[in-house]
Amino acid sequence: MRIYLLSSIFMLLQTLIVFGQEKIQRIEPINWWVGMKDSKLQLILYGQGVGKLTAKSPKAGFRLLKQHQVENPNYLFLDMEIAADAKSGEYPIQLFDRDKQVFSYGYQLMDRNQEQVKAQGVNASDFIYLIMPDRFANGNPKNDRVKGMREMAVNRDSMYYRHGGDLQGLIGKLDYLKDLGITAVWLTPVLTNDMPQASYHGYANTENYQVDPRFGSNQDYQNLGAELHKRGMKLVHDVVPNHVGIYHWTVMDKPFSDWLHEWPTFTQTTYKDQTIFDPYGAKEDKELMEKGWFVKTMPDMNQQNPFVVNYITQSHIWWIEFAGVDGFRIDTYPYNDLQFMANWTDRIRKEYPTFSFFGETWVPGIANQAYFLGGQQVGQSVDTKLEGVTDFQLNYAISDALKEHKDGANRLYSTLGADYLYPNPYAHVLFLDNHDKDRFFSVVGENVEKYKSAMSWLLTYRGIPQIYYGAEILMKNFNNPDGLLREDFKGGFPGDKVDKFQQTGRTAQEEDIFRHIQKLANFRKNSPVLQTGKLQHYVPIDNIYVYFRYNDSQKIMVIMNLNSEAKSISLDRFDRMIGSNSLFDLLSDKKETGGDIISLKPFETKIYKLQNK
Amino acid sequence: MRIYLLSSIFMLLQTLIVFGQEKIQRIEPINWWVGMKDSKLQLILYGQGVGKLTAKSPKAGFRLLKQHQVENPNYLFLDMEIAADAKSGEYPIQLFDRDKQVFSYGYQLMDRNQEQVKAQGVNASDFIYLIMPDRFANGNPKNDRVKGMREMAVNRDSMYYRHGGDLQGLIGKLDYLKDLGITAVWLTPVLTNDMPQASYHGYANTENYQVDPRFGSNQDYQNLGAELHKRGMKLVHDVVPNHVGIYHWTVMDKPFSDWLHEWPTFTQTTYKDQTIFDPYGAKEDKELMEKGWFVKTMPDMNQQNPFVVNYITQSHIWWIEFAGVDGFRIDTYPYNDLQFMANWTDRIRKEYPTFSFFGETWVPGIANQAYFLGGQQVGQSVDTKLEGVTDFQLNYAISDALKEHKDGANRLYSTLGADYLYPNPYAHVLFLDNHDKDRFFSVVGENVEKYKSAMSWLLTYRGIPQIYYGAEILMKNFNNPDGLLREDFKGGFPGDKVDKFQQTGRTAQEEDIFRHIQKLANFRKNSPVLQTGKLQHYVPIDNIYVYFRYNDSQKIMVIMNLNSEAKSISLDRFDRMIGSNSLFDLLSDKKETGGDIISLKPFETKIYKLQNK
Repeated sequence: MRIYLLSSIFMLLQTLIVFGQEKIQRIEPINWWVGMKDSKLQLILYGQGVGKLTAKSPKAGFRLLKQHQVENPNYLFLDMEIAADAKSGEYPIQLFDRDKQVFSYGYQLMDRNQEQVKAQGVNASDFIYLIMPDRFANGNPKNDRVKGMREMAVNRDSMYYRHGGDLQGLIGKLDYLKDLGITAVWLTPVLTNDMPQASYHGYANTENYQVDPRFGSNQDYQNLGAELHKRGMKLVHDVVPNHVGIYHWTVMDKPFSDWLHEWPTFTQTTYKDQTIFDPYGAKEDKELMEKGWFVKTMPDMNQQNPFVVNYITQSHIWWIEFAGVDGFRIDTYPYNDLQFMANWTDRIRKEYPTFSFFGETWVPGIANQAYFLGGQQVGQSVDTKLEGVTDFQLNYAISDALKEHKDGANRLYSTLGADYLYPNPYAHVLFLDNHDKDRFFSVVGENVEKYKSAMSWLLTYRGIPQIYYGAEILMKNFNNPDGLLREDFKGGFPGDKVDKFQQTGRTAQEEDIFRHIQKLANFRKNSPVLQTGKLQHYVPIDNIYVYFRYNDSQKIMVIMNLNSEAKSISLDRFDRMIGSNSLFDLLSDKKETGGDIISLKPFETKIYKLQNK
Repeated sequence: MRIYLLSSIFMLLQTLIVFGQEKIQRIEPINWWVGMKDSKLQLILYGQGVGKLTAKSPKAGFRLLKQHQVENPNYLFLDMEIAADAKSGEYPIQLFDRDKQVFSYGYQLMDRNQEQVKAQGVNASDFIYLIMPDRFANGNPKNDRVKGMREMAVNRDSMYYRHGGDLQGLIGKLDYLKDLGITAVWLTPVLTNDMPQASYHGYANTENYQVDPRFGSNQDYQNLGAELHKRGMKLVHDVVPNHVGIYHWTVMDKPFSDWLHEWPTFTQTTYKDQTIFDPYGAKEDKELMEKGWFVKTMPDMNQQNPFVVNYITQSHIWWIEFAGVDGFRIDTYPYNDLQFMANWTDRIRKEYPTFSFFGETWVPGIANQAYFLGGQQVGQSVDTKLEGVTDFQLNYAISDALKEHKDGANRLYSTLGADYLYPNPYAHVLFLDNHDKDRFFSVVGENVEKYKSAMSWLLTYRGIPQIYYGAEILMKNFNNPDGLLREDFKGGFPGDKVDKFQQTGRTAQEEDIFRHIQKLANFRKNSPVLQTGKLQHYVPIDNIYVYFRYNDSQKIMVIMNLNSEAKSISLDRFDRMIGSNSLFDLLSDKKETGGDIISLKPFETKIYKLQNK
């Protein structure tokens, strides 16, 4: 298949194309498509001395508008325009040294795949499963080590080495995930991280158009999209516009002196998102926040440089079109230039109106979280256009609530009240843990009742629920250090003695939790009421939290006992919502027979369907 | 003086005016003024059977537009219009039983006192001193007990009895307050609370047009205003639009069945302000919040009844005009109908454009606090027009910061960042404690260094600083119960063995704190930079918090060490703000000689003036 070949074009270039003493090593984007709404494209040509050459694009339909000679003579940036009626095919890009043609390359403009499902958007009808692909399943041990890469060690006994998980492994587990009730898979970044250490986590990409060969090929990622879509599931792609790995090819030989945010010596971000919106923030602190580097190995892209803007944006569009991505998770959202993010979002939405975005906003308060959202609900100076965030505020609340907080019910109740500050809280991603946060089973002291309550809450509250791989089999650990949160999914790797993907490999307790999530997730999948239904909650009394989800045809009642003692609650107060209905316990499928009094075990959560008697 | 007589008019009516079997006991407002911007006035006539009579207002200039016969035949509501050219004087209100005139009363329309200072507005140039008048100073022991009132006991040994403090006592202490640097006095409510128990606190008024006789007369209150203004100080009047005392005359014989929010049995508010803005709130909870009673003895006014609206609003305007009030503190703000509050504010602003308002918003979060403010900065459904609040969020932050919170500097820093949600944070009232909150000296474990830091912060941060009486002499106690927060100011009462109003009565430690506050307050009074100057703060490092106040002509630097250990801090980071200036310690008046390194004691706060070397 042609696309597969294209993904390796730069390799071809690297070895084959020579002119005089120089080589053209790269052209990026590695291909493009006809029929996109945006007719503009900016190509980067990279090779020693290419900057002094003159480019031509002789074939009609792919017009060279302008060539940019930049500070570094190894780069040439070409502004191209694709005609509305251009046909797919090869379009020669020629380079001339004065009058002498020294190079010609047949750039591919392809037809868009009209049958491919893509850009559906992820929303509250979904249930997201977050995976670190190195740690989930190894489907192809042959790609565990890839010759020539900076990190060659594979060592499953050490948390910071690669373990060998890959896309082929994951594809083999999609039926498992579908059976669990998952509707969308979010992978931590899959782009090549050719870094000498800790390359497994993926947040230091060194290529923009290549899946890390240790995860598989671009084709494997495209297959993943297709296999998900075949099952009615969606693909969430994790983008990192803020930074790259220090071995990114554009960092090792920078096109501009301001391609990155440069500092006289290494300067780290303050990690203080507040500086971005703070009316009283010192400009030094703002600069540090946005332009300081995330860590030493991850240089900060200068998103005010228009060539950087194009480079990032085009590569993100490329992956949607190529792999059929349905939505982006945006890493370290507050560290980006917000006007850049707004424009970036607009450009992507122009191509894919139903595409969705959620930003990682690991921020300490409601005011912070509100600020980064689009819609200018709270008078932001920039409309970021961001529709959803990872809802850290509710994450803090559910953690507190289940850690025997004396006022736990109120932590949930009051946090949700702040939703009036957000344009569309249903677009927020609700989660208990992720690759950076303590495993929730550990957070709740490995208390199964608490853990079930958390899952019941997650799957019945407002927003897009997300779990982290292994949550369903009680994987545990605290972030001390973060590698401990990223253990292998047992059964996903050759030689594993137990296979937790199989019922036979799970302990009774694990199976109990698995069934709990599976039951709720599958009910939710078929219940619009839990996706788009309205929510109504009541002032907590006696540290018991009650809420309803409802629409015109269905009503669900949830009662959370946040006490370490058993409790009873009278239903009188909810008469208007309950009406003449009976309560059917969703988990046991039994009609509630307690009359107007419901009894709950310590930390128990009950979920009821309301049905005519 | 005429006004003095008017304040007792209802007494006259009560005894003198008889028609047939009936008496006219009251006419309220007890007088009004010509030359107000709003020409409308609604009179309430109260007396047995008055509702069946017909009213006339025969004298030109004071026209009867409409008379309302209401549910209770003992009431007559008269809609009056005062002509633009009406002169001051007596305007007869006549009542007829069919054709027979049975009553005539010369209603007073007075000239507005053009010389009287009033309605100046309280703002960030001020420093407010909050007083419970029963507990501050007793200037007239003869009014401690007033015959005929429901509570006759005076007992200074018991925290819930009256202690005898009064307006005359307070007037005698104004020089003391001025000397301390106070510019505005806020008294807990002074209206008559003819309640059988705990009448001293004032939040259960039974009259709308009368100062509680145990505090003095209306004239005394007018004198207080005049005496304050004479000293360049302001008067803050505490209004309670939400409720009255259960012995309020309109409650004991209600004009309408919906004069109050009525419930089948006593029903308390949820105290959950969130229900007002919560997108998911149950309507039952909202109703309870707004219409439930604050406590059993304080019925909730029905602010949707237009007669209630007029009654409350007119009486508040009356006090501004009569006593020269400069600003309102609004009790239990979130419990009111917000559309009522918006209209009420508009009506008052129409008469007094520079008048100011701050609401008591004792609410648990930033989202809550933002909601009740006017300006619709966060998309509120009602623009309340409220300009300032008692800033409970910063109160929580300063308390945490000084209670050896491991991240105390951040508590202040991050709370202030949320200011972007507020239209005008400089209108917020900043405080350490009040009549409902633990005395701050107790909050900080009676640690003088911490307490000084708190005061330094209070007087240099943004907003309107407020202290609670006795803060300057280290009065202490926790709210356990609230009466403990309301002890007498020693020296204010006949027979007191020590007099803390005098330096000779204060211990060395008390004097030290007194001087600290006095020095800062008087500096602040003459330093626009600390009133309206911009604020800039820095991301805390090492739990040290640094901020500047600055304007075109002045710069102040504040450094708070929130650690329980001594610390040093380098000034390099603040080069841009400090420039070539030297640092002069505001408290010691000494030039800082530490060079670029500043040393701070545990929990010490340094305040520097920046001046040319």
